[in-house]
Amino acid sequence: MAMQLTARTVRVLIGAEPKNHVTRDMPEVKVGFEGFVGDRHSGLTRKADVRTPWFPKGTLVRNTRQVSLVSTEELALMAEALGLPQVLAAWLGANLELAGVPGLTQLPPGTRLFFPEDVALVVEGENEPCRKAGRALEAHHPEQAGLASRFVKAAHHRRGLVGWVERPGVIRPGDKVKVMLPPTVAYSLPTEPGSVGQST
Amino acid sequence: MAMQLTARTVRVLIGAEPKNHVTRDMPEVKVGFEGFVGDRHSGLTRKADVRTPWFPKGTLVRNTRQVSLVSTEELALMAEALGLPQVLAAWLGANLELAGVPGLTQLPPGTRLFFPEDVALVVEGENEPCRKAGRALEAHHPEQAGLASRFVKAAHHRRGLVGWVERPGVIRPGDKVKVMLPPTVAYSLPTEPGSVGQST
Repeated sequence: MAMQLTARTVRVLIGAEPKNHVTRDMPEVKVGFEGFVGDRHSGLTRKADVRTPWFPKGTLVRNTRQVSLVSTEELALMAEALGLPQVLAAWLGANLELAGVPGLTQLPPGTRLFFPEDVALVVEGENEPCRKAGRALEAHHPEQAGLASRFVKAAHHRRGLVGWVERPGVIRPGDKVKVMLPPTVAYSLPTEPGSVGQST
Repeated sequence: MAMQLTARTVRVLIGAEPKNHVTRDMPEVKVGFEGFVGDRHSGLTRKADVRTPWFPKGTLVRNTRQVSLVSTEELALMAEALGLPQVLAAWLGANLELAGVPGLTQLPPGTRLFFPEDVALVVEGENEPCRKAGRALEAHHPEQAGLASRFVKAAHHRRGLVGWVERPGVIRPGDKVKVMLPPTVAYSLPTEPGSVGQST
């Protein structure tokens, strides 16, 4: 189990209003098993929605989407693709902006992030680009036609991750982060009856 | 996101006594967000132990090891490697024995298992072979010298998985299981400064 990647916490953000997608920068955030304290996505459970189409809408399921993370480098790539001076983590409704992890969005499910004041987060998976984030960008750049639609393409595999809290504590901007990848597993489905769909 | 693999529930088991590693077959098990109701590994949180050496021992962390799963096929491979007529799921302290998934132990973190009566489980990762399971085998085969030590090797990558409950419900022997793999992600650490350690 490798544990060499490190990152830096650039921003930590909270979305306190239930209907407002945009988050705002905080000098520190308390983190509990429910998520980031005061954030609208915190909770031990959540209702299934379009993000989890394998459950009937509204089904109560464990909340593994407590926290959303983006990277400084991928925000810059998005801005470049959209022809904007910058794309802010807050516009995407992110809770954390990290710098220094190449291809953050590609970190596999089960990746663990360790913060100095006890917090450990676990990656659930990629955060698929949505129109809400696109509309938040549009609100800041009304002069740009069709920004919300163009965002979905520009954000593809750059939109960051969602995850949950494994260990509570506090996160502050400037915090170093240790990134621990899960053991590499390559599993493929059997291609024909009787064949073994497994390799390591 | 592929969803073609299916499995069959052969047994569902509970370990009710805190100090007894062995589990026993049940005609049905109720499943809550805490885990399998009545099982000694259920709980929303757990204390970090040798299985999670990246946390100080005893630290309260989210319990993502609520349930352990083994496969009929891998149990047979273990028995063969050990020269035993059979290895029972109960001896390994497993909560579920599934049949029909090639290389069950190699299912990646984030794999989801859907049961007909609502339950969804998510894979945390491989369950590393331990001496406790080996000693349970030894208790059933005292004539076999060194079985506990040999078990660790025989169980390598066949010991099954641990995971947690995403959606509550009921599981019974005979239940069909749909297996949903997470999107394939290949992430490797940067090999030299400045290189990008990512590929898709």
